[in-house]
Amino acid sequence: CIIKWLKSTIILLKMLHYIETYRQRHPLRGDHIAQFKEKYFTQILDHFNYNSLGNGTYAQRYLITDQYWKKDGPIFFYTGNEGDVWDFALNSGFILELAAEQRALVIFAEHRYYGKSLPFGDESFNIPNIGLLTVEQALADYAVMITELKKELGAGKCPVIVFGGSYGGMLSVYMRIRYPNIVAGALGASAPILSTAGMGNSGQFFRDVTADFENCSTACKDAVRSAFQKLQALAQQEDYAHIQSAFSLCKTPSSPKDIHQLNGFLRNAFTLLAMMDYPYKTSFMSDMPAFPVKVACETMLNGTDMLLALRDTVGIVYNSTGEHACYDLYSLYVECADPTGCGLGFNSFAWDYQACTEVELCFESNNVTDMFPPMPFTESMREQYCAKRWAVVPRPGWLKTQYWGDALSTASNIIFSNGDLDPWANGGIRKSLSESLIAINIPEGAHHLDLRASNTADPDSVTKARQKEAQVIAQWVKTAREKTV
Amino acid sequence: CIIKWLKSTIILLKMLHYIETYRQRHPLRGDHIAQFKEKYFTQILDHFNYNSLGNGTYAQRYLITDQYWKKDGPIFFYTGNEGDVWDFALNSGFILELAAEQRALVIFAEHRYYGKSLPFGDESFNIPNIGLLTVEQALADYAVMITELKKELGAGKCPVIVFGGSYGGMLSVYMRIRYPNIVAGALGASAPILSTAGMGNSGQFFRDVTADFENCSTACKDAVRSAFQKLQALAQQEDYAHIQSAFSLCKTPSSPKDIHQLNGFLRNAFTLLAMMDYPYKTSFMSDMPAFPVKVACETMLNGTDMLLALRDTVGIVYNSTGEHACYDLYSLYVECADPTGCGLGFNSFAWDYQACTEVELCFESNNVTDMFPPMPFTESMREQYCAKRWAVVPRPGWLKTQYWGDALSTASNIIFSNGDLDPWANGGIRKSLSESLIAINIPEGAHHLDLRASNTADPDSVTKARQKEAQVIAQWVKTAREKTV
Repeated sequence: CIIKWLKSTIILLKMLHYIETYRQRHPLRGDHIAQFKEKYFTQILDHFNYNSLGNGTYAQRYLITDQYWKKDGPIFFYTGNEGDVWDFALNSGFILELAAEQRALVIFAEHRYYGKSLPFGDESFNIPNIGLLTVEQALADYAVMITELKKELGAGKCPVIVFGGSYGGMLSVYMRIRYPNIVAGALGASAPILSTAGMGNSGQFFRDVTADFENCSTACKDAVRSAFQKLQALAQQEDYAHIQSAFSLCKTPSSPKDIHQLNGFLRNAFTLLAMMDYPYKTSFMSDMPAFPVKVACETMLNGTDMLLALRDTVGIVYNSTGEHACYDLYSLYVECADPTGCGLGFNSFAWDYQACTEVELCFESNNVTDMFPPMPFTESMREQYCAKRWAVVPRPGWLKTQYWGDALSTASNIIFSNGDLDPWANGGIRKSLSESLIAINIPEGAHHLDLRASNTADPDSVTKARQKEAQVIAQWVKTAREKTV
Repeated sequence: CIIKWLKSTIILLKMLHYIETYRQRHPLRGDHIAQFKEKYFTQILDHFNYNSLGNGTYAQRYLITDQYWKKDGPIFFYTGNEGDVWDFALNSGFILELAAEQRALVIFAEHRYYGKSLPFGDESFNIPNIGLLTVEQALADYAVMITELKKELGAGKCPVIVFGGSYGGMLSVYMRIRYPNIVAGALGASAPILSTAGMGNSGQFFRDVTADFENCSTACKDAVRSAFQKLQALAQQEDYAHIQSAFSLCKTPSSPKDIHQLNGFLRNAFTLLAMMDYPYKTSFMSDMPAFPVKVACETMLNGTDMLLALRDTVGIVYNSTGEHACYDLYSLYVECADPTGCGLGFNSFAWDYQACTEVELCFESNNVTDMFPPMPFTESMREQYCAKRWAVVPRPGWLKTQYWGDALSTASNIIFSNGDLDPWANGGIRKSLSESLIAINIPEGAHHLDLRASNTADPDSVTKARQKEAQVIAQWVKTAREKTV
């Protein structure tokens, strides 16, 4: 009897082992979450001043999984951006799928001043503590972390590939041009390295948001524009009660400032709908239905009152679960130095600071090339705001000096991927610059769709993009390994 | 009569014009001094923190001459190092000769915290003011200065080539790898980029100093070693009176500390003799006769008392004009975090700080591979000293992380020139790494001899090196110009 029991136990264990092995090789979506270990790295606080307040260290969070790693396999390192690192880890399944395929160690590093990587805890956003939040410090963090973790893990020969989306994609690109001694290649997904370096057009962003809705239907774009115009007319008549009731506002607006806030709140919903226009339900920057732009246009064109339609459309973003009986404008949207939105909570402070210093985001809507009310945001408005909010003077052109702008001829091993649906795309590199500076454009792609896990609803274009990315990255790894052997 | 006078005046003016034109095209040594305009650039004080004490600007000195420049000609930019910028301008005549040949604008920029480029005036060397002295800040200074001056001068299309010697050569190399968007190529002369990044051997420097004297004659090296041994014996007997009289010291030494200081003072003279072993009289880091190592060895082997011979040998360095009746050890040599010498005055503070933070200079003499007394200088001794002196913790390996160490495969357009006589040479790149990472070795060259103006006493090897450098730089300029057109 005992022998029988032992036999069946062994069979059971073998089965479990088989399943586990299979699962590791063929990860499923949603299966990745539990695999990461959350750790903290003792990081140098100020890489560029030996006598500053930052003469110390802080605890930088990172997530790591070696479940796919084979000895001497590559390291896939996500250069965290403006948010909690889990948000990126849970929305970048492609990196894990690729890791399973290429037997890579995966690390997601959290950007200083975001998530739980707060150098001064709750005091991190005070002046002058906030001063240690710069792109250069963040890159140095990653350079040091990679160097040290490789030593710790005995992974000295493992080629490192960096990944990132949006600002994280910019960081990935920067890592490769700044630290090619440490990083063998970079996938910068939806990385607007030109527009944020002051090399774009101030009307580009909201023009491209508008284009997404116009592509859905011209009537949709026209309806949005008309609704904003009607709002403007009511505001000019100071018919604030009507505005409150039409938009279900918790408080009656009482000034042009409130109307400005309302316009920002409304416009921001369209920004998010356009950026997150994925072909399936997602919960990244907010909860979104599949094809949110299409859903928004249907809502916009449904019903007879255009203001109510506009309210319901932004409700897709702000009220997906119906938790708001009314909208509190100032808590649901925070105006900041980034007209495309700073998010809410701690992150909004940090990102606002970055938009006030290095990252140029002087995007405006003008109601000529876009469907939104004219909302200028000039360099001088930025200066005024930033001096008052953070006691800083923004440095236009600095990212161009530091990270080369479009003068990338000496760079190599970078993929610039962009989705045509993404309003950030045209602030990035859209044409290959050389054999190893590769632009991949994804016609049906929104904001870094390619970084997301594969999905049955994926358009062919993103599947092909991921295949191309996988192939290029495998080649980088191969070449890098040949060099170190 | 008036017509006659006018005619002769015109002839005279024509002659003067001809002479001036000729002079500009064919500059003579010593002729360059008057041509530079001394200017100040309003420079950002802290490039990496928007809320620091450096939230402002400082006046950065630079020298500029357009006497050779033709429209759209290149810009030759000297990345100033640890000293008064005039010292480099007056000892880098090759750059001006090359400018005359290639019709270049010439700029010599002064490094922050040196010469007259003191961000906080007399308070610059206080803690925490000194904290803004880093390699990264200095490079950013140059990047910003080049970018702005190009705009000011309408020189947007002019390719920039950077030049530098020693630490200045390191900065030139770094400028090209860090800012290839701004700099088309770099001549890093005698740039010890490996040893200063902790990738060298602690015995290398004084071994190579010793080799220079040994190459002169083995007897010379033996005499130096014997003299140091005799000094050591006297010190062990505490025969301080004998030591004082033998070395003409102003004060009688009274402790091992004083003897240590004396040893440092003596060893430093040999360091300078080796570094400045030029084939003609110079006045760079100190007044030197032609072939100073040869002169030193003649002095060393002249006379019967080896201590007096040693005294007279170091006198070549410390007492060339005979101004010292006796030697005040602590004023003529300052011990610091750089065992090869920190210089005197303001510069010594700044360089000491750099050696305490980023620039690793843990060179030791050991009396085995060199002729000097054993004078250890370990990383932990450095740490102790630097904590006490500057309240900083040195960061070994940081330059390797930041500026790639020997992982230069993605870099391009750099000449690494080194003289075989130079004790710094073997801390640098001695073999070409690719077609555009070119090592030029100069068998008869001391410390960046190639940067000096041509001289009838020049060995063929340096003339050939300069020709090669001129040819490579002309090619860089041509290629860069083709790209911008």
